[in-house]
Amino acid sequence: MTEASSFGVTVPGRPESCFRVTIGYGIKGRMAEAVGEVLEGRTVFLLTDHIVQRCWGEQVVAVLEGMGVKPRCMAIEAGEKSKTWATAGLVLERMVEEKMDRRSVLVSLGGGVVGDLGGFASSVYMRGISLVQIPTTLLAQVDSCLGGKTGVDLPTGKNMVGTFHQPEHIFVDTEFLSSLPVEEIRNGASEVVKYGLIADEGILAELEKMDLADASLRDGAWLDLVKRCLKIKAGVIERDPLESGERMILNFGHTVGHGVEVSADYELPHGAAVAVGMVAASRLSSALGLLEKSDALRIEDVLRGLGLPVAMPGNVEVEEVLSALFRDKKALQGRLRWVLLKGLGRPMVTWEVPVPLVRETLEGMRS
Amino acid sequence: MTEASSFGVTVPGRPESCFRVTIGYGIKGRMAEAVGEVLEGRTVFLLTDHIVQRCWGEQVVAVLEGMGVKPRCMAIEAGEKSKTWATAGLVLERMVEEKMDRRSVLVSLGGGVVGDLGGFASSVYMRGISLVQIPTTLLAQVDSCLGGKTGVDLPTGKNMVGTFHQPEHIFVDTEFLSSLPVEEIRNGASEVVKYGLIADEGILAELEKMDLADASLRDGAWLDLVKRCLKIKAGVIERDPLESGERMILNFGHTVGHGVEVSADYELPHGAAVAVGMVAASRLSSALGLLEKSDALRIEDVLRGLGLPVAMPGNVEVEEVLSALFRDKKALQGRLRWVLLKGLGRPMVTWEVPVPLVRETLEGMRS
Repeated sequence: MTEASSFGVTVPGRPESCFRVTIGYGIKGRMAEAVGEVLEGRTVFLLTDHIVQRCWGEQVVAVLEGMGVKPRCMAIEAGEKSKTWATAGLVLERMVEEKMDRRSVLVSLGGGVVGDLGGFASSVYMRGISLVQIPTTLLAQVDSCLGGKTGVDLPTGKNMVGTFHQPEHIFVDTEFLSSLPVEEIRNGASEVVKYGLIADEGILAELEKMDLADASLRDGAWLDLVKRCLKIKAGVIERDPLESGERMILNFGHTVGHGVEVSADYELPHGAAVAVGMVAASRLSSALGLLEKSDALRIEDVLRGLGLPVAMPGNVEVEEVLSALFRDKKALQGRLRWVLLKGLGRPMVTWEVPVPLVRETLEGMRS
Repeated sequence: MTEASSFGVTVPGRPESCFRVTIGYGIKGRMAEAVGEVLEGRTVFLLTDHIVQRCWGEQVVAVLEGMGVKPRCMAIEAGEKSKTWATAGLVLERMVEEKMDRRSVLVSLGGGVVGDLGGFASSVYMRGISLVQIPTTLLAQVDSCLGGKTGVDLPTGKNMVGTFHQPEHIFVDTEFLSSLPVEEIRNGASEVVKYGLIADEGILAELEKMDLADASLRDGAWLDLVKRCLKIKAGVIERDPLESGERMILNFGHTVGHGVEVSADYELPHGAAVAVGMVAASRLSSALGLLEKSDALRIEDVLRGLGLPVAMPGNVEVEEVLSALFRDKKALQGRLRWVLLKGLGRPMVTWEVPVPLVRETLEGMRS
């Protein structure tokens, strides 16, 4: 068991959100120190999915019970198809049945789906109750647990509904990663690359040394990287909580990535789509004379080394990706803001990317 | 056509909400002056119900089209049963189909149900888009259109889900009241009494002069009272947007009123339940020596004069009301905050009301 470390995040707003992020390896048993004060004297609704429940549910419930908290538990089906308006309704109905009140706390124990769903449910239950995030996947730990974005899908559109709602605490134990299949690690590694590219070139060097097939990686090896990514994201969010400016850089790779996800009917993992999107953004940066060609190539090498795709998937049409880009909720009246690179770790935001160049770049990425 | 007057409201928050309330009789045709700037260059989703659509839909759409706005329209079934999580989902799905984007505006044209539902949908669509409220019932005009509270029902609980979301403009034309049945006027009049009791004794004198059966009342007679109520509410909300203190006084009569609604399975109109609740609160105030007995009796006379109930409905059990009180979302860990009167127009908030006294008071109100 390593030490738990923690840092504070202050997100401007009214009321201002001040919360702590606790992070360590094998620190589950020490949850009381981290969130004891938040949970004390309050009823707790623990939301998780069936897979996480099987792997970690008993341990987490035992720790909570040891703190004098008797959580009411609900496990949803694992996977993206649970991240819906309909499932959110079921979660909220259960919260009523379990007599959660305005002072109750929702604890989300799981990956991105559980985090987004629990975040959304807690933000609208009785006009908003407290939330504690306990992310269990690499993707959730390095990225989605922090930032206050919540969201669910509608039958007519993915991620069309959501809120901004900050948690009261984020508790990250990288030991949870030990139960993940390698594809799921890969899925999160793609976001780790993103943090390297937008803020900290050193992260790339760490990733270049890694071999995801190496089982020993599961034992704490991610701790330092997870911590670095979270600190980068926390800084960005403290400066721009509602995505009016700088926070845009967190969308690096997500513009084309989102278009690829849509065109592939969401049958591609998020991390893979973002990897393709990061390659596109790097090549665009290089074509516009912003980024050295050698740096663009290094990015592709890092992604390839992690087993992530660097070419457009076979079943994806470039024209479909382009049309999805302009239907995205980040598009404003037919115009798109791009996050590009003017160096490794040096992002910039621009409206000035000609559509023909995007088309040409995507065509050039056909496998 | 009388003049349109307007006043500004500034609700603290980040971003701070600054919006205007425009109010007049027969001012629909002058919507451009009021909301032209808000709607300019943006796509508009007009939410209404079937009854309002039949009475006013064509006129409002014509005015909007005259402003160069081509609203996408959706009419829900009229009535409380539309104020649900499920209907909110359908509204959001339609907004996606109609290609609303982050800069779009949702215009709610209708009573409390349409206002609450439209407010909620706009607050979560793409994490929040703009809202314009055009309330058409007396209840919505004097009370629910202002304050930023949105909400829908779950199968397991009424009003359990919602958000705080301020509109960009509130456009009140009291001519809309001319199409309302007298029961619907009565429903709103109950809230007008409330504003008299918590802030402006003069309102009671106005109501004492009224005869709701008089058809001429439909022609502009409510304008002055609606304006006074809205200004009172705006002041309270500016000082306490999130109901952490003073805003509690707006719940005068709603504590017992809500319990009565629950016990009557929501088959009693909201205004009638609030009337019963205001009688209970007045009698409690008087029993605790805060309010002159003659004032408590005057309150009952005003309500009776408006055709509102002052006794516990026959099908409602006192014990059921009591137990509903403590299940209410305003109850915190089994304790209730009461809004009482220390005079007409002089509210106070207190935790100190003995349950036996409440029981005795409610028993004394059996018809």
